[in-house]
Amino acid sequence: MPLRLTTAAPDFASAFTALVDARREADEDVSRDVAAILKRVRSEGDTALADFTRRFDRHDLDASGWAVEPAECRAALETIPTKLRDALELAAARIAAYHEKQKPQDSDGIDAAGVRLGARWRPVDAAGLYVPGGRAAYPSSLLMNVIPARVAGVGRIAMVTPTPGGTINPMVLAAARIAGIEEIWRVGGAQAIAALAYGTGRIRPVDVVTGPGNAWVAEAKRQLYGVVGIDMVAGPSEIVVVADAKNDPDWIAADLLSQSEHDPTSQSILFTDDAAFADAVEKSVEGRLAQLATREVAAASWTANGAIILVRDLEEAMPLVDRLAPEHLELAVDDPDALFAQVRHAGSVFLGRMTPEAVGDYVAGPNHVLPTGRRARFSSGLSVLDFMKRTSFLGLDKGAIEAIGPAAVALAEAEGLPAHAASVALRLS
Amino acid sequence: MPLRLTTAAPDFASAFTALVDARREADEDVSRDVAAILKRVRSEGDTALADFTRRFDRHDLDASGWAVEPAECRAALETIPTKLRDALELAAARIAAYHEKQKPQDSDGIDAAGVRLGARWRPVDAAGLYVPGGRAAYPSSLLMNVIPARVAGVGRIAMVTPTPGGTINPMVLAAARIAGIEEIWRVGGAQAIAALAYGTGRIRPVDVVTGPGNAWVAEAKRQLYGVVGIDMVAGPSEIVVVADAKNDPDWIAADLLSQSEHDPTSQSILFTDDAAFADAVEKSVEGRLAQLATREVAAASWTANGAIILVRDLEEAMPLVDRLAPEHLELAVDDPDALFAQVRHAGSVFLGRMTPEAVGDYVAGPNHVLPTGRRARFSSGLSVLDFMKRTSFLGLDKGAIEAIGPAAVALAEAEGLPAHAASVALRLS
Repeated sequence: MPLRLTTAAPDFASAFTALVDARREADEDVSRDVAAILKRVRSEGDTALADFTRRFDRHDLDASGWAVEPAECRAALETIPTKLRDALELAAARIAAYHEKQKPQDSDGIDAAGVRLGARWRPVDAAGLYVPGGRAAYPSSLLMNVIPARVAGVGRIAMVTPTPGGTINPMVLAAARIAGIEEIWRVGGAQAIAALAYGTGRIRPVDVVTGPGNAWVAEAKRQLYGVVGIDMVAGPSEIVVVADAKNDPDWIAADLLSQSEHDPTSQSILFTDDAAFADAVEKSVEGRLAQLATREVAAASWTANGAIILVRDLEEAMPLVDRLAPEHLELAVDDPDALFAQVRHAGSVFLGRMTPEAVGDYVAGPNHVLPTGRRARFSSGLSVLDFMKRTSFLGLDKGAIEAIGPAAVALAEAEGLPAHAASVALRLS
Repeated sequence: MPLRLTTAAPDFASAFTALVDARREADEDVSRDVAAILKRVRSEGDTALADFTRRFDRHDLDASGWAVEPAECRAALETIPTKLRDALELAAARIAAYHEKQKPQDSDGIDAAGVRLGARWRPVDAAGLYVPGGRAAYPSSLLMNVIPARVAGVGRIAMVTPTPGGTINPMVLAAARIAGIEEIWRVGGAQAIAALAYGTGRIRPVDVVTGPGNAWVAEAKRQLYGVVGIDMVAGPSEIVVVADAKNDPDWIAADLLSQSEHDPTSQSILFTDDAAFADAVEKSVEGRLAQLATREVAAASWTANGAIILVRDLEEAMPLVDRLAPEHLELAVDDPDALFAQVRHAGSVFLGRMTPEAVGDYVAGPNHVLPTGRRARFSSGLSVLDFMKRTSFLGLDKGAIEAIGPAAVALAEAEGLPAHAASVALRLS
């Protein structure tokens, strides 16, 4: 049974605060282990990589080869069913089209004081992409991470993926082929992130590392932030659905379960203004769960982290949604724009009854790598900008430095920085 | 004596690599101390803040008051010399004008498949700004951090600053007044960053923390990245100057020293194609150092980290500059655009002989908070975007889900996520 709250209850405020503050991140203390792994890869390079891979992935890199050859990806793409190949290609084309619009504009101009001012964006030289192995080996994630880098114009993209026992998912290889990845290393875990950040004998270092992973991978990225750029600190996934009674309860139940089935730590929350509809959705969830192949995970998540919140009207839900700052927000109403105008914090918003969150996971075009754990308060989904950086520039002539230079001299002197002052003053008449 | 290299020397490649790889960050292991401070502030709140402030800043918050009152800022602005007030106001206006152009565009449209797709930017609710006390109490830094947040539309800006022994720099208070800051707390160090991130009884939490600080402050920000957004991992400052023999050696010497005087860990590097010019600059640096009030710091930096690199021609310098990925790059030549076109990695570029880096520190307009320690390879200077986040959105109607839904169903099934598939399939005819 999920949590049931109603805003009309006298203890609602404290119960809702408890829901907002509940930490779903597993409290594994992996930071010391990860630090040790990073240190060893940094000093021992490929030797450490081979050792860790033998230990954690039960896999001998020297026997299997360190890299996946491009021919394997080509072969995988030809092996998978046409329907899946078409779906991957549709997804890739739509993701590319959406991300093309994120490309930033350069600027360059001269202002009234005669100062030339501008900004110029350039891609990073190399990006590293982590692709999980095992249960969560998702070709869709690969596309969502690689395509923004490609659109940014990144010259080199290196992928790392664990191949436990030597196996690798053919759909992942097919997606790698579609995305044009030619450099794939059979390493995973914190050691793979370290290899990308520091470089080893075989693997040249990259500038930015993105991609989902387990707690070790996430902690390695966090610790290496600053050595390389990273996409974000990621936590368990979540959805908030705001729905009125005019929805089909089955549709909404399926939407809630689509989040729950990701992981036991996932969270699905329904806000509705109709108690009977809330009951109908809950009943549908129970029924659907019984038949779901992923029921073990989905039931654990729904029971531990699911919630149904009854509000007086849907407007009342919106400030509560902002406090949750959800990764995904569905507004399943006739006029979703009216509610969307009130949303300040959400990773991605799905407007109207015909927009289940899962279309956004695969084929709509926006990125599915989104801020979790209330981080939509301050961060954004993965984008082309994560693979680019901006250089500001300025140029003064004699007139411009006469105009603004004296103020710089005054401030430099006030800050006790005489060489700053002199570098400007020498150029003044 | 700074390092002297010449690209014509047989050992140049290894000597230059050593220069690129040299770590200038102090190797203080502050991470354990910082973790303990964060933990205590998180659990004990204001009590911990008062204790740490008494211990580190020799200052009793209950006696002095925890906050600086807006009236103190107003009084400071009226007390400082008119020339400085005018300079601060010119700087603020120019910084605001430059950053206004960084405001991102929202998008909203319907594509050929009938899918509505868009992105909407919003400011974070609250930003926290760290302003150092003591030697490095720079009003210019305050403006550079606050103004992008103001331009972004951030509703609440909370400033923290240590007031060792109770004292606070009147120029900082005046700048706070000009920037419209009304919430200033007399706390500093890692404990202040923790207070901003977690909140305490008195200080409400913020969403993003920016601003320069010592090793403890930088480490606190690094550890709290993900709890809040942060500006960047900052290291020692640096400048690279590319100059031909047509420059006045005194001007270039002053430019190099303007970086050296910041800190003993700062770095100033000159690339030139003329050995006699290199000698003249070095001689001028020596002469200017003797008379510089900041000579102790500047000489230590110039001796330990300075370098003069002789190249065959300035084109040869450009790939070397990219390997350094400098925070600041001056191109002191007649046609700086020709060289600038070859630059891939730099925080900010100063074009031509009349553009000393120091004008960018104060009054030009671009931000002076820039990536250091080769991080310009993957990160950008502080901008309006650091105080905003993007929400993607999409909306499908019956036609649109019929068009792209089947591909989502196929991929969800292939990924073993049946509830994802069902949430789309239920909406198909």
